[in-house]
Amino acid sequence: MASQLRVLVTVPFKPHHLERLRAAAGPGAVVTQVDVPAGSPEMRAALAQADCVIGEPAPALLAEGTPVRWVQMTWAGTDLYTRGAIPFPEGVRLTNVAGKAFGHIISQFVVGQVLTIAQNFPAYVRQQERHEWACAGPVFSLEGAQVLILGTGDLGGHTAQRLSGFGCHCVGVCRNTARELPFFERLVTLDEAEELLPGSDVVVNTLPNTDETVHWLDERRLRLMKAGAILANVGRGNFVDCMALARVLAEGQLRGAALDVTEPEPLPAEHPLWDEPRCFITPHQAGGSFGKCDGTEERICEVCCENLRRFVAGEELTHLVL
Amino acid sequence: MASQLRVLVTVPFKPHHLERLRAAAGPGAVVTQVDVPAGSPEMRAALAQADCVIGEPAPALLAEGTPVRWVQMTWAGTDLYTRGAIPFPEGVRLTNVAGKAFGHIISQFVVGQVLTIAQNFPAYVRQQERHEWACAGPVFSLEGAQVLILGTGDLGGHTAQRLSGFGCHCVGVCRNTARELPFFERLVTLDEAEELLPGSDVVVNTLPNTDETVHWLDERRLRLMKAGAILANVGRGNFVDCMALARVLAEGQLRGAALDVTEPEPLPAEHPLWDEPRCFITPHQAGGSFGKCDGTEERICEVCCENLRRFVAGEELTHLVL
Repeated sequence: MASQLRVLVTVPFKPHHLERLRAAAGPGAVVTQVDVPAGSPEMRAALAQADCVIGEPAPALLAEGTPVRWVQMTWAGTDLYTRGAIPFPEGVRLTNVAGKAFGHIISQFVVGQVLTIAQNFPAYVRQQERHEWACAGPVFSLEGAQVLILGTGDLGGHTAQRLSGFGCHCVGVCRNTARELPFFERLVTLDEAEELLPGSDVVVNTLPNTDETVHWLDERRLRLMKAGAILANVGRGNFVDCMALARVLAEGQLRGAALDVTEPEPLPAEHPLWDEPRCFITPHQAGGSFGKCDGTEERICEVCCENLRRFVAGEELTHLVL
Repeated sequence: MASQLRVLVTVPFKPHHLERLRAAAGPGAVVTQVDVPAGSPEMRAALAQADCVIGEPAPALLAEGTPVRWVQMTWAGTDLYTRGAIPFPEGVRLTNVAGKAFGHIISQFVVGQVLTIAQNFPAYVRQQERHEWACAGPVFSLEGAQVLILGTGDLGGHTAQRLSGFGCHCVGVCRNTARELPFFERLVTLDEAEELLPGSDVVVNTLPNTDETVHWLDERRLRLMKAGAILANVGRGNFVDCMALARVLAEGQLRGAALDVTEPEPLPAEHPLWDEPRCFITPHQAGGSFGKCDGTEERICEVCCENLRRFVAGEELTHLVL
């Protein structure tokens, strides 16, 4: 009889989620949860006793060599392992939860970001602190607005669906434009997207961190954007050149920008975007995962369970990155 | 040949709107626009030369006796004339733009209010002032949320449509519950609505100021609301007992309240709601009319043109209040 499969859980799944993971792994596995920092000696010790991990241990610890053969992330973005200084160990499989877990909650967040800028809400919060009852300017109606959504997957697709409900016309940016996707009136490639900047009332980025996306929205492209346009970024912070954005926003050409991701993160205290009234910053909260959104936790758990079942059965994993 | 119909416009319609009004009134009418305060001597002088008015002159001036036979309001709420201390002159017709002009923009505003509270945005604006990058707490997912919408007309109906796109289940509060309305899973009367307060995650008020709605949401009913619920008010400020709301919010039972209307308006500088972190106040901006939202201006103009045409033709007016 083979020895037991050792499954290490490093994220704060609730007891009922752990029960589901145990059921998915079956009687031949032992599932252990730890609550220790990602790069700590305690994590090192735990990894030394694990065949697979659900969570995000520090890349340096994985690189030291461990029995771990598979890492199931609970995030969508994989850049911690795929774009960092420390290479992910060869022969270890990496899976994430992209395309499944975050679309509902992040698209809700995006609509909130866009409406907050469209309706001058940050200005009203600041006025409220001064007990001031005064109009802060015209509102921007989404009815008939042209929206450019970078990314057409789980995040971009749900965002298009929701914004369409406000009368927006959505164009999606993706690699495979030779198809039809619901709620997108048109699909274009990232190369073609530049031409659409001058005509877009709202630009939403949901793209991950890749060679093609880093600083795609640089100062030149920011200056191509339509006067009075709204920018929302829930993808990765380095999609936007944040120093250039601070300059462009200060000139008043754009209505505003809502950033849930920045470069770097956290945004340094001395960064000019903090004091820019046209910028609304949230500290990487759109995903609302553990302890922040039950529905998202459920969907993360579903992917982990399905992959645990497949791993035990020797089947191909879903959401495979490496 | 009859003398010319004198149409007085007291609101800042743009030149192209005035042209449309002139076309609707025909060659037998003269349309004059003034930009003077609602209760000023200049307004009194203008009313003395008018057969009908598009706008909202002070009730006291109308009560003095004028040639005016018809007032076409550019607002939805009529309480200025129908519930004030000064009676609207007998025999003068009153029309408004309820049910037509504001649904699109106010429902957009409401979704923004709800998402702002659901996603802790006011806290992030305040943190941004301190250059602080920190989680302000869990987000509230609208997926599967129970929403109680008071009012099922232009405002409530569009609000239900948009919130349904986020996975909300909407119950509408109206007089005629023996019908089906799109995007409402159920209709109840205002009397029956109280029973639904403990089960509603979100409560939205869009109702006008009437005997039945004044202080309907009093301290007793506020305390019936579900723990963690969200309140949004875009109807009339006196629907909510604002002093009671300040007490209930301070106790932390509710997630928060977004008020675009208050009692009184403007909210006095010493009112406790200004400093309540769970309250988000906007100064009666949801309608976004003249100079604030082109689409709303267009729809207001459409109603005015149609009624001018009818008035000249001797047909029955639409949107008749008195």
